[in-house]
Amino acid sequence: MERIEQHASFGGRQEVWKHVSATLGCDMRFGIYLPEAALRGQHCPVLYWLSGLTCTEQNFITKAGAQAHAARHGFIVVAPDTSPRGAQVADDAAYDLGQGAGFYLNAVQAPWAAHYRMHDYIAEELPALIEASFPTTDVRGIFGHSMGGHGALVTALRCPGRYRSVSAFSPIVAPSQVPWGEKAFSAYLGADTAAWRQWDATALVATAQERLPLLVDQGAGDEFLGTQLRPELLKAACERTAHPLELRIHPGYDHSYYFIASFLADHFAHHAAGFTGR
Amino acid sequence: MERIEQHASFGGRQEVWKHVSATLGCDMRFGIYLPEAALRGQHCPVLYWLSGLTCTEQNFITKAGAQAHAARHGFIVVAPDTSPRGAQVADDAAYDLGQGAGFYLNAVQAPWAAHYRMHDYIAEELPALIEASFPTTDVRGIFGHSMGGHGALVTALRCPGRYRSVSAFSPIVAPSQVPWGEKAFSAYLGADTAAWRQWDATALVATAQERLPLLVDQGAGDEFLGTQLRPELLKAACERTAHPLELRIHPGYDHSYYFIASFLADHFAHHAAGFTGR
Repeated sequence: MERIEQHASFGGRQEVWKHVSATLGCDMRFGIYLPEAALRGQHCPVLYWLSGLTCTEQNFITKAGAQAHAARHGFIVVAPDTSPRGAQVADDAAYDLGQGAGFYLNAVQAPWAAHYRMHDYIAEELPALIEASFPTTDVRGIFGHSMGGHGALVTALRCPGRYRSVSAFSPIVAPSQVPWGEKAFSAYLGADTAAWRQWDATALVATAQERLPLLVDQGAGDEFLGTQLRPELLKAACERTAHPLELRIHPGYDHSYYFIASFLADHFAHHAAGFTGR
Repeated sequence: MERIEQHASFGGRQEVWKHVSATLGCDMRFGIYLPEAALRGQHCPVLYWLSGLTCTEQNFITKAGAQAHAARHGFIVVAPDTSPRGAQVADDAAYDLGQGAGFYLNAVQAPWAAHYRMHDYIAEELPALIEASFPTTDVRGIFGHSMGGHGALVTALRCPGRYRSVSAFSPIVAPSQVPWGEKAFSAYLGADTAAWRQWDATALVATAQERLPLLVDQGAGDEFLGTQLRPELLKAACERTAHPLELRIHPGYDHSYYFIASFLADHFAHHAAGFTGR
């Protein structure tokens, strides 16, 4: 593991690390914000951020303004890349398949199955690495944006007990029913749509054993709202099983980091409440 | 004038506009944040941000987290590009001369004099355009980073009465005495170093008629500190004439936007105090 960036930030430090991922079979990078308490060796809870299509570990750490909130709450914040990377890793010319578009699942179809195991990376390998390398508690939260909002919801729903809190901005809530998800799931998982349900938050919430409250923020001016995101599908599924969901639709906001930054303080407060059982 | 981006942000709107600059003889872009009060037509004070070498209007608006502060204070924030641009505009292959490196002065040497009049653009044309096009008061502040910190200090010192407040992050305080400035001033202004003094904050402060308090933040871990920035030169000049300067050296901080974001709230507070006479 090699540190390739470090910047003092809000009394703590924003770092970027590179490591060899055994799960993915390639080098991976992640951003990690260490609040001042962590720099002093105090053990801190960890929030995992999953980014959207085309992103790397850089987008969130440079554009969201998250460090101010992480410093205030004393959280470590980890921002991984969005897919395996490298010349040996299968790719596609489109922005919504292959590198930069891992969809936080474990692929079973060729040529993707060899490297595309982002679920195992995010839920197993990366937390183990973080918790062995930095002063963390075992308190974890997970959140993300768009494809990463899908990833956060699915990862939390698939791993009961693993996360104290989950939230999402503009998530792809029902990938089985929208073009981005249909394309990715067909490639990564194959034609059997029954298998898709295990990677679809709207499907998973129907059988969730843990009633982790979901906070979802969505811009009403988001160009992908009606075609790719469709939060009403998650809302209906949550209502059917009385799964707790706070879905907030914000007039005028789009799909950008300007939207994320505007409401990020509320997400940190949501995770802080989950972390302390309030 | 054409709006080319708009994003809801912290209850207001981040926009990017393109216009034809008569001063510079080319198309120019600027970012403008309009707080919610401005969207309702209420007249708001305006803060001008000048960016550093290689930057465009995008760096500050995407990386600094300024919108949160602008929304809280009810300020319009304008972030122009750092030089004239375009195929007809003289350029240099180096990152520190030509396009992206206008140094906020009026060039007198060929081939630069034809377009490189960033001082007149920043101090005259742009404020006139902003004040004619958006709901502003006549209360103005100016701040910036690195080359833009130099630009903010020089612009305020050259135009007494024009700005209520000025501040800078990691400014080039004495361009006449450091490599970045020597290279740029030789090209833009020529070999007569007496002419350079009119574009050098440390020289200007010696004869300043207005005692506008200067706030300067500098990272002690900044790679350019000892060679290009040298804040001690400004400090000594201010001490000689009792010009008010608050110079803060922050251990560990570097030259990046992570540093700017960490202390930006204090700069907004400084400008708010200047705006209200507190």
